[in-house]
Amino acid sequence: MAERIPVAILGATGTVGQRFVQLLDGHPWFEVVALTGSARSEGKPYAEAATWLLDTPMPAWARTMTVLPTRADVVTRAGARLAFSALPASAARTVEPELAAAGVWVGSNASAYRREPDVPLLMPEVNPDHIALVERQRRERGWPAAIITNPNCTTTGLTVPLKALAHAFGLEAVMVVSLQALSGAGYPGVPSLAIMDNVIPYIPNEEDKVEWEPRKLLGSLRGDEVELAGVTISAHVHRVPVLDGHTLAVSVRLRTTASPDAVAEVLASYQAPEATRDLPSAPRPVMVVRHEPDRPQPRLDRMTGRGMTTVIGRVRPDPILGIKFSVLSHNTIRGAAGGALYNAEWLARYLGWR
Amino acid sequence: MAERIPVAILGATGTVGQRFVQLLDGHPWFEVVALTGSARSEGKPYAEAATWLLDTPMPAWARTMTVLPTRADVVTRAGARLAFSALPASAARTVEPELAAAGVWVGSNASAYRREPDVPLLMPEVNPDHIALVERQRRERGWPAAIITNPNCTTTGLTVPLKALAHAFGLEAVMVVSLQALSGAGYPGVPSLAIMDNVIPYIPNEEDKVEWEPRKLLGSLRGDEVELAGVTISAHVHRVPVLDGHTLAVSVRLRTTASPDAVAEVLASYQAPEATRDLPSAPRPVMVVRHEPDRPQPRLDRMTGRGMTTVIGRVRPDPILGIKFSVLSHNTIRGAAGGALYNAEWLARYLGWR
Amino acid sequence: MAERIPVAILGATGTVGQRFVQLLDGHPWFEVVALTGSARSEGKPYAEAATWLLDTPMPAWARTMTVLPTRADVVTRAGARLAFSALPASAARTVEPELAAAGVWVGSNASAYRREPDVPLLMPEVNPDHIALVERQRRERGWPAAIITNPNCTTTGLTVPLKALAHAFGLEAVMVVSLQALSGAGYPGVPSLAIMDNVIPYIPNEEDKVEWEPRKLLGSLRGDEVELAGVTISAHVHRVPVLDGHTLAVSVRLRTTASPDAVAEVLASYQAPEATRDLPSAPRPVMVVRHEPDRPQPRLDRMTGRGMTTVIGRVRPDPILGIKFSVLSHNTIRGAAGGALYNAEWLARYLGWR
Amino acid sequence: MAERIPVAILGATGTVGQRFVQLLDGHPWFEVVALTGSARSEGKPYAEAATWLLDTPMPAWARTMTVLPTRADVVTRAGARLAFSALPASAARTVEPELAAAGVWVGSNASAYRREPDVPLLMPEVNPDHIALVERQRRERGWPAAIITNPNCTTTGLTVPLKALAHAFGLEAVMVVSLQALSGAGYPGVPSLAIMDNVIPYIPNEEDKVEWEPRKLLGSLRGDEVELAGVTISAHVHRVPVLDGHTLAVSVRLRTTASPDAVAEVLASYQAPEATRDLPSAPRPVMVVRHEPDRPQPRLDRMTGRGMTTVIGRVRPDPILGIKFSVLSHNTIRGAAGGALYNAEWLARYLGWR
Repeated sequence: MAERIPVAILGATGTVGQRFVQLLDGHPWFEVVALTGSARSEGKPYAEAATWLLDTPMPAWARTMTVLPTRADVVTRAGARLAFSALPASAARTVEPELAAAGVWVGSNASAYRREPDVPLLMPEVNPDHIALVERQRRERGWPAAIITNPNCTTTGLTVPLKALAHAFGLEAVMVVSLQALSGAGYPGVPSLAIMDNVIPYIPNEEDKVEWEPRKLLGSLRGDEVELAGVTISAHVHRVPVLDGHTLAVSVRLRTTASPDAVAEVLASYQAPEATRDLPSAPRPVMVVRHEPDRPQPRLDRMTGRGMTTVIGRVRPDPILGIKFSVLSHNTIRGAAGGALYNAEWLARYLGWR
Repeated sequence: MAERIPVAILGATGTVGQRFVQLLDGHPWFEVVALTGSARSEGKPYAEAATWLLDTPMPAWARTMTVLPTRADVVTRAGARLAFSALPASAARTVEPELAAAGVWVGSNASAYRREPDVPLLMPEVNPDHIALVERQRRERGWPAAIITNPNCTTTGLTVPLKALAHAFGLEAVMVVSLQALSGAGYPGVPSLAIMDNVIPYIPNEEDKVEWEPRKLLGSLRGDEVELAGVTISAHVHRVPVLDGHTLAVSVRLRTTASPDAVAEVLASYQAPEATRDLPSAPRPVMVVRHEPDRPQPRLDRMTGRGMTTVIGRVRPDPILGIKFSVLSHNTIRGAAGGALYNAEWLARYLGWR
Repeated sequence: MAERIPVAILGATGTVGQRFVQLLDGHPWFEVVALTGSARSEGKPYAEAATWLLDTPMPAWARTMTVLPTRADVVTRAGARLAFSALPASAARTVEPELAAAGVWVGSNASAYRREPDVPLLMPEVNPDHIALVERQRRERGWPAAIITNPNCTTTGLTVPLKALAHAFGLEAVMVVSLQALSGAGYPGVPSLAIMDNVIPYIPNEEDKVEWEPRKLLGSLRGDEVELAGVTISAHVHRVPVLDGHTLAVSVRLRTTASPDAVAEVLASYQAPEATRDLPSAPRPVMVVRHEPDRPQPRLDRMTGRGMTTVIGRVRPDPILGIKFSVLSHNTIRGAAGGALYNAEWLARYLGWR
Repeated sequence: MAERIPVAILGATGTVGQRFVQLLDGHPWFEVVALTGSARSEGKPYAEAATWLLDTPMPAWARTMTVLPTRADVVTRAGARLAFSALPASAARTVEPELAAAGVWVGSNASAYRREPDVPLLMPEVNPDHIALVERQRRERGWPAAIITNPNCTTTGLTVPLKALAHAFGLEAVMVVSLQALSGAGYPGVPSLAIMDNVIPYIPNEEDKVEWEPRKLLGSLRGDEVELAGVTISAHVHRVPVLDGHTLAVSVRLRTTASPDAVAEVLASYQAPEATRDLPSAPRPVMVVRHEPDRPQPRLDRMTGRGMTTVIGRVRPDPILGIKFSVLSHNTIRGAAGGALYNAEWLARYLGWR
């Protein structure tokens, strides 16, 4: 058996960073050699620096690791070949290129580089071929490594069924209304006084991401360019008092008319491209279609497929756009740390590491 | 000063019944002479029969009233000229016609008769002229009194801005996604184990009501017939962990293109038809348009205008339908008891009682 | 390997019944051969009869089992040698003796027989020797089998540390204030309108159970009699908006003065009597003592030791009674289904089945 | 009619500051002439600086007031004769003496000076005579004005019934377990991810305050000294997911044995000393004793007496200490801003201003 690949987690103390720690515990390919944090956490043992919010215990190996500063030289010196980035966009903007320039591959959950034409915005069950953009990125930027990104958590849950529909029927327009979980805002994130017995019909910059990112993910790679998909998306986003799991109400206009049954069948039978299907974090299955009238529900369904499966329900006719349905996706697993990990596994295979 | 009009509340112990008791406390025109309930409550003092859930104290006059059986003869004998019905649809179907036949006017919050062609589905700030249907109803059914109805709580919040838009710009299509409060399901209603840390993307029969009822409310009275408005509506409904106040994400396609500013201006300046504007329960103003990016919010905004005002926010372009915005409406005040009361005030004026 | 012991679950569709189904999935000793429910559920497949509320999927074997009526003849005919009872006390009172008389051992979570002098009230890490009462029960009642019971969920969490303290220091008086989870009230249980943004300082009959049951559990078996422990207990109970996990604030007066450190040490090192220590459901460890100032917390700590471990925190001096601390116990696992299962394992060993 | 007394609110943007703004709106004696805030808020209109969290609209006069820096010279220049302080303890420690030295009376909600022997810790329905300590304070410190303080929010709710009991029966020992609302932690305060589906059995420094402050409030003023009451108090505190209203489970050992009925009668009939009984913010009545088994509840009862009345329930025997009961008190009204305002009214009368 090959030695495990040494990896770092940047921004390891936050809600997404904690998910990385949890999901990398016992991972067959990756071994965590560095955890980084902000100035406030630096130098402390991880057990002390992180306000652990998950209901599985903090892994023993993580408890005693010293939190390092989030700097490229430090991460390089720790021996990481790949860094998972759970940094805020502003910090990511500076550190991630420094790491790639220093030869450390970056799997970023941040929004900073998602729209760069030479940076793959990647979901292995949707557009694994886009990974080839790393060649252009390395060539043009002169870096030994590269940055790959996963989309915003709401984009993630939305794009899985859209991919299947676009492939089967063609896709013209998408209305999506989100009911997003609190963990998406990080920690301390949303104050309890702001959200108890309440809904907030706004999340800064979120609608713009959800209206744009799926177009890159569903786009076609032509040579070195991703041609954005010609679909129009409209998003209304909300924060709701739910811990984990984003619920989406989606209406779509397809190019070819399709019945709800045909749509449900296409979603339930969708498979990831063969090359990415057996990666350790691949969702099994990619989607589950529920037939009860009142599912999916975040508390009951978010852990389907260890949090990597997208759950669909209520597929039915829409009198305006044609078809409507509900989507549930675990925002910090499939939509953040789990998605970045799945991407990194695909990168490791692409680079011939595994 | 005229004597107050004696009224009954049917189904007075439930969440909507309690709102009737609260809102009728000190009402300038109406005086409660009877409270009715189910077999379980019958014969008990109201203070004992009702699990009072409101944060204002139960009015003293109500505490000691004996809960009567929900029967037309009993209500008639109690001297009521008008009965507010907070009954479930099945009970309403039987009792309400018996009351009208016995000469007691019925202001019903139930869905049982909303779609009857001779029963007005009424919102005084939207379609007060529809009240004339009571003439046809009395004539055709041979009743001395009649039934008037108010719409479903989600329909209510939606229809207020739709009316203003239909009038100013014409209206073709409406996509609405609701995040509905728990009080809409009554008591005991939604179990806490079902909704804490959760969202339920379904409410039985609700989408059908929201897709149909606004068409009658926005329709034109031609002679004795309401011609349904030619607007297509698509609804996705959700139950969320909020006590009171339904939040709606609305996208509309107007007949005439309008900018978000023009739409906001039309909504903010909309006034009820003059005849209903000064009724005791009239919303003042009909709508408030908020300009902060993150409003309306149910906990903060539901009591605007004593719970009768519809609050609008986030008016902005929609890339698919043209315009989108958020709506908040208090579901048990404007959307139920307060709405029925406002209707009854309009009826009292129409009948020349006030 | 021996064949697995055929068991039934009585009242299988409720919140405790569902926990039995979940915990018996893949159990090494027991195999479920019958699920029973009320008239409403009878004859339906379990998947349809139960509103499944757990976040692990319903086991496949359970989905298709037909829910049987809760009758002794039916359970006997299904071949069960042991029945787990998640029945309400009133139903338990009738059916449990019929089962024991018919030769089916009963592991009951109901309160109906806990106080009978010949019925063991049992926690294998506390008083496994009390199981010998089944001999008296069979002899006096002339039954081939017998009923064993586990205590109320709040009693359970309280009694684990009390046992260790009573053994080490002697115990005179206990003040306990509970903050109890919603799942303890079953389904539909507590209405969301009753508990959101709220606390209810009362649970019917609960304080009486918590003040009495620990005295039997901590009592000494002398011949055929349990002599109640001479400890005075005072309980204030509350329902709080938490899904699972009862939090207790406990103050104790010990017979021998002990420092907080000595108390913490005694609690952390307490072990179950050797005979019950390696049972499949035995808590490992029995107690965890946390040293952070703000633990235990129900959401973070309830799954410690797969929900069977009792978590202690904040051991400190009490100026009135001497020592105070916090306790967390999973109310539907250690405090209900898991406790009954642990008891049944001990019974199976006691009877020589394993 | 006399001119209103000009007052300032220090720390006006936080949760307690907002309550001051709300409660001073339309106050018959006081007029707000200055609102102060931190550097972040300074110079902004209050409407922009404060994240308003109350469900009544921000008063129009407050919206446009410019937030001033929290400095004694600024407050003096604005013409305030009295300043309400909602500052954190550290800021209060510096600014409050500067104000008193500059001739501005300070009604402080902060803990900074509560334990100073020359500073009154005051509740007008409990110990109005302690106000005389301001003479000693002015004399010893050489200040033209003085600081008066109100107790911690949990102390407040507890001390009201303790005063009545101490007076009627004598008081030896008090065990109190609190279930405290989120607003007590300010804004942003408790993160939603920390408290949803959870309880936190700890609040920094809180138990110490609750175990000490009632002893000063219940103490006797002998000359210039408050002799602390000889009662032993033990507190366990918890944060729970409730917006407003602290619930307390209290057990007491009285000097004279008293029945639950006698205790309930003493609590229900307790009146504030005559001099403070008719102040504008005086609770009417001081306490309400509920007789339902499941009251008080924070959501239903916190607004009793406009949030100034303390609500008692479940008065019953305690097998260890003698008597136990539940208490509910609105933590940001009676327990903070409303309490400070009531104190200031008493000061205004004491100084002969009204």
